[in-house]
Amino acid sequence: MIDVRISPVLIIGTGLVGASVGCALTRAGLEVHLQDASPTHALVAASRGAGTIDPIDPEDVNLVVVAAPPRVLAPLIEDALATYPNASVTDTGSIKGVVLAQLRAGGVDLSRYCGSHPMAGSQRVGPLTARADLFEERTWIVTPHDNSSAKAVLAVQRIADLCGARVISMAAGHHDEAVAQVSHVPQLMSALVGGGLLELPVEHLRLAGQGLRDVTRIAGSDPGMWTQIISANASAVRTELEELSEDLQQLISVLDDPAQVTAFLDRGRRGTRRLPGKHGALPADYAQVVVEIPDEPGALARLFSDIDKAGVNVEDVAIDHELEREVGRLTVLVDPGRAPSLRTAMQAAGWTVRD
Amino acid sequence: MIDVRISPVLIIGTGLVGASVGCALTRAGLEVHLQDASPTHALVAASRGAGTIDPIDPEDVNLVVVAAPPRVLAPLIEDALATYPNASVTDTGSIKGVVLAQLRAGGVDLSRYCGSHPMAGSQRVGPLTARADLFEERTWIVTPHDNSSAKAVLAVQRIADLCGARVISMAAGHHDEAVAQVSHVPQLMSALVGGGLLELPVEHLRLAGQGLRDVTRIAGSDPGMWTQIISANASAVRTELEELSEDLQQLISVLDDPAQVTAFLDRGRRGTRRLPGKHGALPADYAQVVVEIPDEPGALARLFSDIDKAGVNVEDVAIDHELEREVGRLTVLVDPGRAPSLRTAMQAAGWTVRD
Repeated sequence: MIDVRISPVLIIGTGLVGASVGCALTRAGLEVHLQDASPTHALVAASRGAGTIDPIDPEDVNLVVVAAPPRVLAPLIEDALATYPNASVTDTGSIKGVVLAQLRAGGVDLSRYCGSHPMAGSQRVGPLTARADLFEERTWIVTPHDNSSAKAVLAVQRIADLCGARVISMAAGHHDEAVAQVSHVPQLMSALVGGGLLELPVEHLRLAGQGLRDVTRIAGSDPGMWTQIISANASAVRTELEELSEDLQQLISVLDDPAQVTAFLDRGRRGTRRLPGKHGALPADYAQVVVEIPDEPGALARLFSDIDKAGVNVEDVAIDHELEREVGRLTVLVDPGRAPSLRTAMQAAGWTVRD
Repeated sequence: MIDVRISPVLIIGTGLVGASVGCALTRAGLEVHLQDASPTHALVAASRGAGTIDPIDPEDVNLVVVAAPPRVLAPLIEDALATYPNASVTDTGSIKGVVLAQLRAGGVDLSRYCGSHPMAGSQRVGPLTARADLFEERTWIVTPHDNSSAKAVLAVQRIADLCGARVISMAAGHHDEAVAQVSHVPQLMSALVGGGLLELPVEHLRLAGQGLRDVTRIAGSDPGMWTQIISANASAVRTELEELSEDLQQLISVLDDPAQVTAFLDRGRRGTRRLPGKHGALPADYAQVVVEIPDEPGALARLFSDIDKAGVNVEDVAIDHELEREVGRLTVLVDPGRAPSLRTAMQAAGWTVRD
């Protein structure tokens, strides 16, 4: 059996992700050492329970986790392979193919390296925000390459496991293509629609409903962070964008043909329905019950308490505020069979139920 | 002063919109007569309180509301102008320019006609779902043309008012451009992204997060209904799509230039921020507090009750379900200054607060 002892672990880079890995592994009883280009960061991470800043004999390190910004990943990984001769080495970057290509170009033996991508994070980036449960129930993608040793792969799977994450294995290029499709391209398309709003007259924007708000919500994200991600994955992103660009031009050319417009919309609906829903199940068709809520503390508590008394399980909720008076609408998604009785119960409890 | 007496009103077409207008006007004390190509529909609408199916002398009708599907609007309006010589005539179609052009091509005197578009509706379409409050606090766009008489315009504004709607006036072409921008094009862009998911491997889709779900939510709408809307507004939609198509091609061409990618993303964020937020105010930057919720009846009620006890006003909420265990996360948006104390209070009440 392969020896997958991973303690002691050295974490290089103690931002949110590195420090949180440290907290989770420390909690699991492992010996964790911390390093950061900023000694203060490492100290703060140590104070949060991520590990120790005490030095360690390089020969003793069994696993190195490089949790640094994209542009320095490859040199730090290469350096770690040279400095810690007995250690497996992984990284936590959100793009895998570019880093692997850079490492391969360096010509070093990569058998002790296996990439990974824990899919968690936050707008907040420092070690002060570290938490041992950051990765619990999140997806952690492990990206072995052709020459990754079984020991390195198992070591990475083991830390993902100790962090409470769900492990998925994927080749690096495959990973980058997948995140381009389900994350980077939707981000850019949202920004595309958002950018189109920039020149609109204010009176047009006043007609906007919830649909436009949903489509453009993620366009409100930090451009700096997303530029780093998209630049690192430009090749996979370009491939996907070119396909969408062709689809869009095709749509424009058939806009006068209702049958083709229907086919386009139907294709969109069928694609959307492929997204896994709640608990991995297919998306269900829920019924919605819309209740008017006064905008005051306690209204939601009373509302949910009354929904609870009606004995109906809430599948999802959304709050939609009226533009010009102090009132909101709460849309509650429930099992279609329960919607009529919920409407009746809410009306009986004095709430205004709307369409 | 102009005589804007509108009673008795004749409503032609008693689907959800026509019957709901009837309910609201009847409630306001007006005499409302109902007509529908399907006598059963008119009968059901009458039974819902939308008005009477009793015949009325054409000379006596003061206002005709044509609430019929897009493709029959123009002939029905023209017919109403001929049949009811003393009546102002309006319609409730969601596209205004095409209908006006068709009417103008007919060569009849249109001074008694003024279009309108009540921005309310529902997936449900029959008179059984009619309700007097359907238009309350919704936007009702009135689209006078150059030759609309003041009397016709005032009559339409008056029914919108009696229905409890907010009235906005706009030229027909202007209206169609605005709804293309804030409604039809976002719908198509959502479908474009949704269509891109159709060929993806299932294991890629498993990596999808909330962002992709938001962008593609409206792509789940009924293709038939949207084909009618988009076909009727194809010209304005095409103009907007062509601009977005150019922006997309421009993005593809600069994908290797981080400064240009940032500029693109920043443009998207600035555009999105122009959307009116709560109560017509600018969107605020709220802080989010994420609490883990067991998926069982009563959990949300207890949760909101505890949030209420913490004395914090909830600005918005979203529920995000874990894929593979029976637990959800509730994201609560609150004033940034109140977030830390809410987190503390929720933890003290036994909830798991997450990033």
